[in-house]
Amino acid sequence: MSATVNRQYILASRPKALPTPQEVPLVESPMPVPAEGEIVIHNRYISLDPAIRGWMSDVPNYIEPIPVGTKVWATGIGVVVESRSPDFAVGDIALGMNAWEDYTCCDAAVASKIEDTMGLPLTTFLSILGATGMTSYFGLLDVGKPQAGETLLVSGAAGAVGSVVGQIGKLMGCRVIGLAGGEDKCRQVVDEFGFDDVIDYKATTDLAVAIAQKCPDGVDIYWENVGGDMLDAVLLNLAHRARIVFCGWIATYNDTEQRPGPKNLWQLLAKSARFEGFVIKDYVEQFPEGIAAMGQWLAEGKIVYKEQVVEGLENTLDAFHMLFDGRNTGKLIVKISD
Amino acid sequence: MSATVNRQYILASRPKALPTPQEVPLVESPMPVPAEGEIVIHNRYISLDPAIRGWMSDVPNYIEPIPVGTKVWATGIGVVVESRSPDFAVGDIALGMNAWEDYTCCDAAVASKIEDTMGLPLTTFLSILGATGMTSYFGLLDVGKPQAGETLLVSGAAGAVGSVVGQIGKLMGCRVIGLAGGEDKCRQVVDEFGFDDVIDYKATTDLAVAIAQKCPDGVDIYWENVGGDMLDAVLLNLAHRARIVFCGWIATYNDTEQRPGPKNLWQLLAKSARFEGFVIKDYVEQFPEGIAAMGQWLAEGKIVYKEQVVEGLENTLDAFHMLFDGRNTGKLIVKISD
Repeated sequence: MSATVNRQYILASRPKALPTPQEVPLVESPMPVPAEGEIVIHNRYISLDPAIRGWMSDVPNYIEPIPVGTKVWATGIGVVVESRSPDFAVGDIALGMNAWEDYTCCDAAVASKIEDTMGLPLTTFLSILGATGMTSYFGLLDVGKPQAGETLLVSGAAGAVGSVVGQIGKLMGCRVIGLAGGEDKCRQVVDEFGFDDVIDYKATTDLAVAIAQKCPDGVDIYWENVGGDMLDAVLLNLAHRARIVFCGWIATYNDTEQRPGPKNLWQLLAKSARFEGFVIKDYVEQFPEGIAAMGQWLAEGKIVYKEQVVEGLENTLDAFHMLFDGRNTGKLIVKISD
Repeated sequence: MSATVNRQYILASRPKALPTPQEVPLVESPMPVPAEGEIVIHNRYISLDPAIRGWMSDVPNYIEPIPVGTKVWATGIGVVVESRSPDFAVGDIALGMNAWEDYTCCDAAVASKIEDTMGLPLTTFLSILGATGMTSYFGLLDVGKPQAGETLLVSGAAGAVGSVVGQIGKLMGCRVIGLAGGEDKCRQVVDEFGFDDVIDYKATTDLAVAIAQKCPDGVDIYWENVGGDMLDAVLLNLAHRARIVFCGWIATYNDTEQRPGPKNLWQLLAKSARFEGFVIKDYVEQFPEGIAAMGQWLAEGKIVYKEQVVEGLENTLDAFHMLFDGRNTGKLIVKISD
């Protein structure tokens, strides 16, 4: 290995809103030295996801927060450049919970070896066949339990998760309506991802009324990616025995104060409805099933997906902002090395 | 029939908080005259439930609100005094959605004939074998899905629904903790209803900490009867894959303004948990199953229940206040006639 420094982003202090370069600086660290059982991965690609913003905050969550003074985590894929494990050889492709850095040193047991890339680009394993695609697959099928003929409303419909949720919903026979912001995204939701209809939430004056118009029989399944006022508008439009699949709350991740919860939660009782959270790590053991199904749909051309690849580790923080300011469409990935 | 007037409570205007005698006055109306297919029931007992407060408000709910200028509904049981239906004879015992009144005239199709009282007092059909007992039964078993060894936390634990929920939880093998207000109610929850432990929420300074102490492995099932700050404290103590059975929000029914929702709803995602509403009318067709099970437990002495019977229709409004000001323990029933 010729590199002598490992560039990495450090959580210097907990961000108050969108993380700044002062809160999350890019620093130069010594090259990691693997202990027995560890490997060093030269990252090719890392995945940027809204959930990472949650891990930066010191609030009770599904994993412990990133400790202050340590590196920022991200799913990543790369090439093994050093190995002190019998399970990996130098040159192997490894996927794991890596970080915003050039080189990740980790216990070999927490990395997965990609034996066969099936001729697909490595980015696929961070997008449609990775945690993002599996979030859509298991969240919709296992939590949402869609039935043919039901109405599925998807927030973040142009996003990496939402766009796939909607397409799986169509394959299950649902009528699928998207929520997206702006004309470009709305056009994409219908023309590229094949949703039945879309609501441009930025162009509506009363979102609850707009949803009622597009979903006259009520919303049977709501894919909850956003939170805030949008959730309150959807709650007023639930069908009897509706399911809200709680995947995330991107609208709230950069709040400086804890905001009050939805006002219209009573509608869960009025409609015998269910609001259910899930985290994808609960499904890790079922990933082979999900990857097989998704791979089949991809091969048959039944699912399309979009990636947005930003070049260069040094652009990671700015790229991360894109998730929250509306610039991102498609699975956001940073390319670290060739 | 010798009576010439029918005393009834009228919803003169929508209550702002606890209903006042001006908003819900007792008036004298002419005796009802049944049309073809209708019956007149002389009410013996009516059931007072917190949900009635919700029906008085003009907000989206599981049934249409009571129209202003009309009588206040309540489940009731009484004797048929006039019948223009082949399904009922004078002298039959009829149970139905009656009202706060002496005589209820209704379509015979919406009343149920109690052919055999099984030697039980008529009040039983409004309490443990009525909608109250069935709420506990189907809510806990069908929505909560208790497993032996799980921790069940019950709000309103000294109340008509909560006390039975806890006892069924014990029969299912759960560890059952109650939430109640004041020493008397707390003593009753443990000594009379057999809960494993109880938290006096009026005597705690930090309810979330108190729950954490009594439920060290987290709350697997929360019976949600209360809402407000109590719900927020419970949300901080959920176990992985917890279920919140949303039965009602007595803390909010007399609010003058819509209050914000729970602040800690994110915990549903962090814990892969579920918040699910239900209304007992969804289970009406399964009542025979629930009544049979409950009757068996009663016969075996495995379930105890408490009723609080207030005498006289003219005391109905004051009795209704008891549900909200802490004076009520046990299923609240008004006796209308002998």
